[in-house]
Amino acid sequence: MAELSILPINFGILGCAGIAKKLFRAINLIPDATLAAVGSRSPEKAAHFAAANNFPLTAKIFNSYDAVLDDPDIDAVYIPLPTSLHLKYAVLAAQKKKHVLLEKPVAMNVSELDTIIEACEDNGLQFMDGTMWMHHPRTSMMREFLSDSQQFGELKSITSCFTFAANPNFLENDIRTKPDLDGLGALGDVGWYCIRSILWATNFELPKFVIALPGPVLNKAGVILTCNASLHWEDGKVATIHCSFLENLTMDVTVIGTKGTLHMNDFVVPYDENKASFSTATGSVLNGLETIWVAKPDNHTVITDLPQECLMVREFSRLVSNIKSNGAEPEKKWPTISRKTQLTLDAVNESLQNGFKKVEIVN
Amino acid sequence: MAELSILPINFGILGCAGIAKKLFRAINLIPDATLAAVGSRSPEKAAHFAAANNFPLTAKIFNSYDAVLDDPDIDAVYIPLPTSLHLKYAVLAAQKKKHVLLEKPVAMNVSELDTIIEACEDNGLQFMDGTMWMHHPRTSMMREFLSDSQQFGELKSITSCFTFAANPNFLENDIRTKPDLDGLGALGDVGWYCIRSILWATNFELPKFVIALPGPVLNKAGVILTCNASLHWEDGKVATIHCSFLENLTMDVTVIGTKGTLHMNDFVVPYDENKASFSTATGSVLNGLETIWVAKPDNHTVITDLPQECLMVREFSRLVSNIKSNGAEPEKKWPTISRKTQLTLDAVNESLQNGFKKVEIVN
Repeated sequence: MAELSILPINFGILGCAGIAKKLFRAINLIPDATLAAVGSRSPEKAAHFAAANNFPLTAKIFNSYDAVLDDPDIDAVYIPLPTSLHLKYAVLAAQKKKHVLLEKPVAMNVSELDTIIEACEDNGLQFMDGTMWMHHPRTSMMREFLSDSQQFGELKSITSCFTFAANPNFLENDIRTKPDLDGLGALGDVGWYCIRSILWATNFELPKFVIALPGPVLNKAGVILTCNASLHWEDGKVATIHCSFLENLTMDVTVIGTKGTLHMNDFVVPYDENKASFSTATGSVLNGLETIWVAKPDNHTVITDLPQECLMVREFSRLVSNIKSNGAEPEKKWPTISRKTQLTLDAVNESLQNGFKKVEIVN
Repeated sequence: MAELSILPINFGILGCAGIAKKLFRAINLIPDATLAAVGSRSPEKAAHFAAANNFPLTAKIFNSYDAVLDDPDIDAVYIPLPTSLHLKYAVLAAQKKKHVLLEKPVAMNVSELDTIIEACEDNGLQFMDGTMWMHHPRTSMMREFLSDSQQFGELKSITSCFTFAANPNFLENDIRTKPDLDGLGALGDVGWYCIRSILWATNFELPKFVIALPGPVLNKAGVILTCNASLHWEDGKVATIHCSFLENLTMDVTVIGTKGTLHMNDFVVPYDENKASFSTATGSVLNGLETIWVAKPDNHTVITDLPQECLMVREFSRLVSNIKSNGAEPEKKWPTISRKTQLTLDAVNESLQNGFKKVEIVN
């Protein structure tokens, strides 16, 4: 039998987006991955990025994305390019046999994503999206609570909210406000996390239909800055999302079951790097006079040795390593949940674009 | 000038509802009010209620509601009767010159409430509904935060949720599940609090329109057990409510502004009787790498000498006393906010009954 390989995975990064710094740091912090190359269409930007982030001397700096993809030393690429470029570069990466870690939103729509996933599958490559909080140990602890029929019961409702107050420069210049770049705006950016958290809570059961709520805020170019929607399941579960670039930073998920309640207020990025909390309540009741709670929610704190982005890169690198060295199959869980997230996001977008009509989700 | 009277107000209670115990205790705990009489259509029930709750020996026990209203010693009545009886007994109480502290939901619809309020106004009487948390000192502290343009900014969105897991006996027998008693079900009971909290957060600015979300749960008699709705304001503010008798006890309000966020998770009944908490955040941002929060939300704890139901009875009693002894006018704030709550609740109910259509609110 082949021994499990522990050779680090050589990463290439396409572009010098702000988020790339976070991933570069994550790659540096774990032995499972090495930053081997960065590519940018602006040589000055790439050089500055490399210097500012203390790139390893061994890392190559290329003046194009294609050059990274053509480098035979590169095993996998992290793609934090504008969403509108994902289809082209993720497919090209797969054709060049690079495993793909793709920033969210993964595509402009599920049809594009299907092309990307197919390219990865055809080439035996791992696909994963960049939703970091999925990899935090808190997430699996919360999953245990939601799966406990005694502690949580049957899932009934979910509220997920992610907002931040973008500054004037962001609202004017950020790619997330440009129809030809991250054209899905706040829905694709913060809304992606809301939808993912809801699907996660339901164990990735797709809603039957979604309805966008009236009153989204769009910028002059028609890009979503604020929107709300409700998601509805066959069995009656209901979820609401609220996402915005125009409100104080807030990241809430509340999940209510017949017997229990889960709360967290920092679900996308934990308040602290070395620990994260959530609260659970089970069988909550008031006293007989209804003047106090008999049992209050419990707070739980999870200690982490590595930040969640490291855990994501480690998980991805281990999967890639296992494919590369041991001939393993790619893990289908990751493209599957990316696709469900994009499918639900598309439905919300369709409802927003069509007078808040009910949009059925067909898998 | 007349000296401010400190004579206690003589309360009569109509009926022996469970909630009456809480109010009786509240009346007993403060010097501003005295329990003078209770009326029930069942003499046994009234005698048992009086004995079980250590009624003062001076308190009269009547075999009818009318007898309480006819007693000239009674200044004010607390009416925790089923909602369908509010119109009759609140109007009768006003005609008999009794000030009215009316349990929520105050009426089956705003037209009934208008009749009740008119009867109180015509007779120079104070009207107040039984929404206890409005009187908690935490509520005014949170109001200060929401009113602070530097700390909170402009209000953008509100989420309010109140659910509890009713037991089988409740679902079978409680008046809140009977169309001819508390016919508004979960919307009138827990939903009242959600709507009130939202109006409170907006400084009682009425929404322009509301939309109920699909998928309410009704019992066999058609009474609402679970429902969701969104509320929309002229300036783009959006709020959602989630209320249910079928989910673990949860009481959340989240209010987000351009600069700040307010959270509380026990808004209707605080976890503890002598203190209550809430959290606020201002100018929340992540660090440059987006790995942690630079400023975390602050928790605030408010210590109280008296529980919120006492503070409600005290406020009501002081208003009544000032009318009675000093010829003051009734405080219009209380009927005004009751009416706005009922008006909004009616609109949600209309949307629920009419295929989740958009219902405009006309004041």
